[in-house]
Amino acid sequence: MNQSSARAAIHIAAVFAIYLSLAMLLPAAVDLYFGNPDWQAFAFSALMLGGLALAVALATHGRPPTVTTRFGFLLVNLLWITLAIAGAVPFTMSSMSMSLTDSFFESVSGITTTGSTVINGLDSAPPGILMWRSLLSFMGGLGVIALGLFLLPFLNIGGVSYFKIESSDIEDRPFERFQTFTISLIGVYTALVMVCAISYAAFGMQPFHAINHAMSTVATGGFSTHDTSFVRYTDTPAILWTASIFMFIGSLPFSIMILFAVRGRLDALRDPQIKVFAGYCIAFSVAVAIYLRLQSDMPFLDALTHATFNLMSIITTTGFASDDYTQWGPFAVACIFVATFLGGCSGSTTGGIKAYRFLILFELMAHGLQRLIYPHRVLTVRYGDRTVDPDTQRAVILFIASFFIIWGIGIILLGATGLDFVTAATGALTAITNVGPGLGPVIGPVGNFSSLPDTSKAILAFLMLLGRLEILSVLVLFTPAFWAR
Amino acid sequence: MNQSSARAAIHIAAVFAIYLSLAMLLPAAVDLYFGNPDWQAFAFSALMLGGLALAVALATHGRPPTVTTRFGFLLVNLLWITLAIAGAVPFTMSSMSMSLTDSFFESVSGITTTGSTVINGLDSAPPGILMWRSLLSFMGGLGVIALGLFLLPFLNIGGVSYFKIESSDIEDRPFERFQTFTISLIGVYTALVMVCAISYAAFGMQPFHAINHAMSTVATGGFSTHDTSFVRYTDTPAILWTASIFMFIGSLPFSIMILFAVRGRLDALRDPQIKVFAGYCIAFSVAVAIYLRLQSDMPFLDALTHATFNLMSIITTTGFASDDYTQWGPFAVACIFVATFLGGCSGSTTGGIKAYRFLILFELMAHGLQRLIYPHRVLTVRYGDRTVDPDTQRAVILFIASFFIIWGIGIILLGATGLDFVTAATGALTAITNVGPGLGPVIGPVGNFSSLPDTSKAILAFLMLLGRLEILSVLVLFTPAFWAR
Repeated sequence: MNQSSARAAIHIAAVFAIYLSLAMLLPAAVDLYFGNPDWQAFAFSALMLGGLALAVALATHGRPPTVTTRFGFLLVNLLWITLAIAGAVPFTMSSMSMSLTDSFFESVSGITTTGSTVINGLDSAPPGILMWRSLLSFMGGLGVIALGLFLLPFLNIGGVSYFKIESSDIEDRPFERFQTFTISLIGVYTALVMVCAISYAAFGMQPFHAINHAMSTVATGGFSTHDTSFVRYTDTPAILWTASIFMFIGSLPFSIMILFAVRGRLDALRDPQIKVFAGYCIAFSVAVAIYLRLQSDMPFLDALTHATFNLMSIITTTGFASDDYTQWGPFAVACIFVATFLGGCSGSTTGGIKAYRFLILFELMAHGLQRLIYPHRVLTVRYGDRTVDPDTQRAVILFIASFFIIWGIGIILLGATGLDFVTAATGALTAITNVGPGLGPVIGPVGNFSSLPDTSKAILAFLMLLGRLEILSVLVLFTPAFWAR
Repeated sequence: MNQSSARAAIHIAAVFAIYLSLAMLLPAAVDLYFGNPDWQAFAFSALMLGGLALAVALATHGRPPTVTTRFGFLLVNLLWITLAIAGAVPFTMSSMSMSLTDSFFESVSGITTTGSTVINGLDSAPPGILMWRSLLSFMGGLGVIALGLFLLPFLNIGGVSYFKIESSDIEDRPFERFQTFTISLIGVYTALVMVCAISYAAFGMQPFHAINHAMSTVATGGFSTHDTSFVRYTDTPAILWTASIFMFIGSLPFSIMILFAVRGRLDALRDPQIKVFAGYCIAFSVAVAIYLRLQSDMPFLDALTHATFNLMSIITTTGFASDDYTQWGPFAVACIFVATFLGGCSGSTTGGIKAYRFLILFELMAHGLQRLIYPHRVLTVRYGDRTVDPDTQRAVILFIASFFIIWGIGIILLGATGLDFVTAATGALTAITNVGPGLGPVIGPVGNFSSLPDTSKAILAFLMLLGRLEILSVLVLFTPAFWAR
């Protein structure tokens, strides 16, 4: 790592912060519209952050950096930390007078699209704050798709992605293509949010709540404008199904939508991870629906609505809840715990282990078992009709191993801060996977994170960031090799 | 798989069962000595099993088999199932009138050196039954060392082992060497049990209990002759330390002791997994001791005694308890949960993931992170001063991945049988790792498995067998390749 690339990374982060300060004007406008004096908090935050960012941007202006992998990792981390800190500012300034830790937790939870909240009393919170939370999820979701589609694959982390699939697209005028794709990504993503919001509103959700929920649905974020999440809509199956559908879409590789928008082609639908993802969504939803039907008097269709909504919410790492599913019985709870690990597809807004990693892992396992019987059989690991190179295989293994080790460390650290076993174990898990709710009475679907000690919140926020950046992009910063000249 | 190798495997298992029927005469003698009429149950079991085994052995007599890897896997599974079923017979016959499921569970728990029990009222149980339980652990421990030292490494599963290290020893007159090593293994193992029993007795344990506990200590089994495990000895630190020391020794690669006995050499002590294992034993014991001291008025030495005993008991996958450690506070419970995954060294009686796998995994992770920064750097994975071949690397990954996937499936299945989340999650874990106690009021250190539904017990017994046979030796049986001609 040399000074000039550190400077360049800080410069890009500062320019990014200027845009973030502009984003704060939206919640300011919302508060102004609803006549809430909290608009000043956003205006002041925007001014402060914008001024500071401008100063840093000017001070670090210089020649463009040499783009190396180390520069890539540094930039990714720096951008997310900038987003986390900038996101926290309005919370500390607002009339809700949140502590620094709470503000940071809420901001990180938003930008990582985790959706855990420390705010009690969302239903009476200033509209600007609610909008800011949704906006953080929205921006975080957009950012992570961009990361997963354009950057992580080149750092050998994010799996098999759009650009690697379509290498002919970048060989020919790369920057022009890049611009086209970025614009279509933003277009597709925003369009999805709008269609989702309109659907929510059409089925009876108030417009303000519809817009907020739509942002956090497509981003698979999980922030709600109600303390009780979607429990309020428990009697409107159409709203729950809308949510289920858009959480599902938000978990698909956005390359599908982009390729369709830019080229009118749908071949990316052949991506084999989609089948795996859809497969476990259906399996878990139907199994829990049948169980719910057997355990209660609920008609099967209602059971299917609620099982699908809540299981999709966990699998897609969104974190909404239409009911206290921890009361659904042991089988449902066990399924929900296991579902917390899963995640959606690469190139989407979801966290967790993700379908493409399971696909590659199962290939590796099947081959490994065969080689135990026929040690000299040569087998190539395949992903659809392509061969998975050894580096990608290694990255999958590396991610999964790090995932479980960090989960273990997280449990011990959270235990040290005094959290009971279930809260510590499921809290660490739900943070790394960016799901949101854990199990147990404290952080379960009807609880929230407000009562946790500050150190627990700080640990959880760090775990969310780790999970969001696919763990490895953060871990490399802790290797001596990274900092060697 | 062809008929002649299936026949040969059944023949070997039948001969093995004849020996097992002879082993039943020991508890029969114990019951006779104590004047307990239960001796008849063992005598009858021995006669029945012995007769049946003899018949099968004669019927399957024939030419020696072609030794292939498939034959090896088939034999390993068959031997353990024979041991499990033979072990269960006396329980069903005894005056304790245990159900078939309970008998099978208790037997599997013994031979896999797990140590979970379904028996309430151990303190008043017939001495023969107590001896049989200890004997099952003793034989299971011996069997798994033999498996880990002599067989699994050739099936590319059990890691870096004695024979692979000392290949010169087998090239030259292999069968003679094999005999020498087997005899010294049995000698070393039995000697350790005797020294342990004498130490227990010297520190005040009654001789019968000392012998039983010694067998289940060195086997890292965990069966106790008391319902409350080692709580009775809570005020005799010397007994707790004796247990800690022998659990530690039982978790070391037995190649050390064998090489020393046969050759008077101690070079196997350089095995790098020993450092890793000792390292995490000390780290967890000391951390929990300090925490205990801070949380209570206990003098530090007492805290260290109890923390070391109980943590060693979990890490070495033994499962004794000197106290209800689930009441020690969140940090201790979190440490105990994470410690449940660890295990001792390869070539020992312990279960769990094991130190050598962590060593290889950490090497792989460090290299993986370095290669993210320098994609073209070539790095060789090392184990001490040797290079780890790709097949061994793959087996480590394959094991760990299967471990977590099977844990997940176990949780869901146990949830389906109605177990609450903590019991299901820690029960599945403690079964796969052959530890014994889980967390929570039901199967925690002061509880037992008697109240669980029969299906839960059957699932747990299967998980114990899976864990004991390093998962993969069982999983291969489920691949079509195994059964192809």
